[in-house]
Amino acid sequence: VRRLEIVAIPYEGEIREGTNLADALAATGLLANGDVVCVTQKAVSKAEGRVVHAPPEELEARLDEALRAESRRILRQRGPLRIVETHHGFVCANAGIDRSNVGGDAFSLLPLDPDRSARAIRDRLRHRHGLGVAVIVTDTFGRAWREGVTDVAIGVAGIRAIVDLRGTRDWSGTELRVTEVCVADELAAAANLVVDKAAGTPFVRIRGIDASWFGESSARSIVREPARDLFR
Amino acid sequence: VRRLEIVAIPYEGEIREGTNLADALAATGLLANGDVVCVTQKAVSKAEGRVVHAPPEELEARLDEALRAESRRILRQRGPLRIVETHHGFVCANAGIDRSNVGGDAFSLLPLDPDRSARAIRDRLRHRHGLGVAVIVTDTFGRAWREGVTDVAIGVAGIRAIVDLRGTRDWSGTELRVTEVCVADELAAAANLVVDKAAGTPFVRIRGIDASWFGESSARSIVREPARDLFR
Repeated sequence: VRRLEIVAIPYEGEIREGTNLADALAATGLLANGDVVCVTQKAVSKAEGRVVHAPPEELEARLDEALRAESRRILRQRGPLRIVETHHGFVCANAGIDRSNVGGDAFSLLPLDPDRSARAIRDRLRHRHGLGVAVIVTDTFGRAWREGVTDVAIGVAGIRAIVDLRGTRDWSGTELRVTEVCVADELAAAANLVVDKAAGTPFVRIRGIDASWFGESSARSIVREPARDLFR
Repeated sequence: VRRLEIVAIPYEGEIREGTNLADALAATGLLANGDVVCVTQKAVSKAEGRVVHAPPEELEARLDEALRAESRRILRQRGPLRIVETHHGFVCANAGIDRSNVGGDAFSLLPLDPDRSARAIRDRLRHRHGLGVAVIVTDTFGRAWREGVTDVAIGVAGIRAIVDLRGTRDWSGTELRVTEVCVADELAAAANLVVDKAAGTPFVRIRGIDASWFGESSARSIVREPARDLFR
């Protein structure tokens, strides 16, 4: 029987530019080999200094400027909402720029390379702390066609973002067809269920995933090529 | 600390038309008050007789016919793939028609009213078996912009599909903005992580969700109104 356990990792400290997230995670004593650790975009962006502070009277102008700088192109616009394609290829609202949990006159930008962020945390946990875990950097995105936001993976290390079950046969012998499952997004969504938005929980531990899912990949592999995308 | 446990519920029997899923779930002895039970579309469709059998030489024609009957409109088409809007309003590939796990020359259709299916299971668990649980009917859908499929909620009972955190303030006092979280989809995604696709695991139990999420709603509330949808 497969069983998964998902817990919010309590973290009392404040994350600032330069905070080493791997050391902070190791210090909790709550990780073990084979765990998946989800780290919020907000935690990573703060630690990497991807936070912009602006005087109140300049805030709107700085937000506009940041949105243009972070976007490869704007796909749709309605009122203040702009759905853009970021330089990473992610399609999301306002280029992932976010004012929550960073203080009143500040906003956060997405990490420059969230796969690299995930890899840095994973590598340090392994080499400095002897912990073999997979790392997923998560963010909260809207979707087409469906109301409500869900968390998705924007960076991964040590885990296959998409697990290809194509060609696997089910018990009745029929060939499974559309079964490339984006387990990284499903893990990110699962992690969001234990997050306390008000407290800004930065870390979630997932224990019990299928061992065959560990391996190298990239959250870029989740980005559908625009040419293959029927809705871009 | 918030903690969630997700387990596949072992089920040995075969689900056929007329199988009572609530009785089958209760018989496992694995449910308790406050649990969320995820039931796959495939299990519900089989139990409700939403499976079409066809002689091999007629299969393609019957699939085409079913696709037209199940679709309100076709949004995109490429090769054999048609992205449609179903009569429920769901946007998905081939109207959710699926040949896996139903036997060689058969295919399943989505339940006519998956919210009603979820409610029937929930009501019977409560009134016949004294178990107060929430029920989510799940299915595997593709997405715009992102590769890989994930599980989503197509029917819900006893749980708020979307939890509105708008206006909640985070610790720094900034008003949270886009924080209507589709917890039903996140729970469905989480459940898919313990499913054995080859075995066709029909039931997953999730224990430990926030008590404030229980309540009445509908998976129809997840469907974005076409007029509000920038990508339809």
